[in-house]
Amino acid sequence: MATVIDGRLLAKKLNESTKEEVTIMNSKSIVPCLAVIIVGEDQASKRYVRSKHKKAEQLGIKSIVKALPEETTEKELLSVLDEYNHNDSINAILIQSPLPKHINEKFVMGHINPQKDVDGFQTINSGKLFLNENENYPVACTPKGIMKMLEEYNIELLGKKAVVIGRSTIVGRPMAALLINAGAEVSVINHYANVNDYTKDADIIVSATGELHTVTKKDVKSGATVIDVGQNLNEDGKLVGDVDYDDVSQVAGYITPVPGGVGPMTISTLMSQTVELTKWSEKHNE
Amino acid sequence: MATVIDGRLLAKKLNESTKEEVTIMNSKSIVPCLAVIIVGEDQASKRYVRSKHKKAEQLGIKSIVKALPEETTEKELLSVLDEYNHNDSINAILIQSPLPKHINEKFVMGHINPQKDVDGFQTINSGKLFLNENENYPVACTPKGIMKMLEEYNIELLGKKAVVIGRSTIVGRPMAALLINAGAEVSVINHYANVNDYTKDADIIVSATGELHTVTKKDVKSGATVIDVGQNLNEDGKLVGDVDYDDVSQVAGYITPVPGGVGPMTISTLMSQTVELTKWSEKHNE
Repeated sequence: MATVIDGRLLAKKLNESTKEEVTIMNSKSIVPCLAVIIVGEDQASKRYVRSKHKKAEQLGIKSIVKALPEETTEKELLSVLDEYNHNDSINAILIQSPLPKHINEKFVMGHINPQKDVDGFQTINSGKLFLNENENYPVACTPKGIMKMLEEYNIELLGKKAVVIGRSTIVGRPMAALLINAGAEVSVINHYANVNDYTKDADIIVSATGELHTVTKKDVKSGATVIDVGQNLNEDGKLVGDVDYDDVSQVAGYITPVPGGVGPMTISTLMSQTVELTKWSEKHNE
Repeated sequence: MATVIDGRLLAKKLNESTKEEVTIMNSKSIVPCLAVIIVGEDQASKRYVRSKHKKAEQLGIKSIVKALPEETTEKELLSVLDEYNHNDSINAILIQSPLPKHINEKFVMGHINPQKDVDGFQTINSGKLFLNENENYPVACTPKGIMKMLEEYNIELLGKKAVVIGRSTIVGRPMAALLINAGAEVSVINHYANVNDYTKDADIIVSATGELHTVTKKDVKSGATVIDVGQNLNEDGKLVGDVDYDDVSQVAGYITPVPGGVGPMTISTLMSQTVELTKWSEKHNE
């Protein structure tokens, strides 16, 4: 049976280390600050923003939540963003997706100051990642959190066979880049590929397709590490991942559960990256 | 026997179409201009620069070659670059590598105006490629030329298995990104990987390792497309690629020779990208 990679435990550990760092920063009168902008009344988005706010406060990070009404124009939103971009007391900015349809989300997102880009989505930060020069630059939180999980469980990457299923700019592509930078042999495949062709010999499988049963028992070799980024509702309305967890657990060496795997690490990584952005900006201003 | 992908013929065709475009631009009083900066006396570099200069002139592109002495300081080089960066009559800038050891090559290269980055190496342009938003942005010339070759021979990419051997920022990584953006299933592997594991079922193999015999006959399935980026000297001092050409030709569907394959396309792509940069800058200034 696979060792379960306990995302909640790792997230707790990461939060504790973040909190310690923040305490030291506070003693030097530095208060990391995360600003989250949310537009409209999407209930899931409001829930996410509340949980980020709560987590930040728990860790001693100052949290600003700017809730704008549904009818906010793109110009008004850009003006708020511009103020935050230039406000030296704000270290990290996040615009909660999705934005209302009358706003060009990509255009607005593209205006976040890259030095405050806590989501790691800006072009310049993606370029740094692609070129393996991302040491002091933010990276998308989900794949960054996954790298931390692999590290905590001492899962070797150098020269290992890794497969990333899904090629989104938020998960798949940055995940692949991080694995390439770590020296793994990396296959990046579409969700409609013949998954088994790639995964059957893989040491590490990361599934981010949002499709039930993307990875089944026959797709996993004995002892492989299986990371499940999916958050899907199954036939019974239960939250599950892309991976057939019960079956795959019998053959995998390590596996992340859903819930309690990648999810908790993403928000903890968001917090630790807020602190990193604060440190980097202090460094840049020295 | 494989169909030989004739790089010289394709380069000639691309040059002709570039020349036609330049003629039309000239009739509107637009003259694309490529500036090449070379520092020191490296003979191979001087030869490359001369051939770029000659090709540009043939196509009606204005070519400026700035040859600086070996003892040029980093500051002096940056000052020349800065002038070119701001000179509106220069559309494309290339700094010939390698630079003398007393100059931080990476630092200097990083100062090229991204809008004139004909090599496509700047962080912002790499980010655009990584995010599949590179439509009006420059891309590294060797992989861009290879995509053109695949297109000219109608080699399908969507859903096909591609393997890129070598992960440099100049060839391997941008090649992988272009193939991912085209919808291929892409494996990016180190030169020390077990190549056969990946290539034996691949539809497209791109080798950019600089190692003789990287791809042998047993590594290639019948009908596959084999692209050879290598430029190596063999035991007899003859220029050859990474691929065992004679053997592999017997099983591959398409193959690029060395010399006469990828090489000629790279310089033609440099010229066509100079013209594209000129068009994009005209567009940005509208």
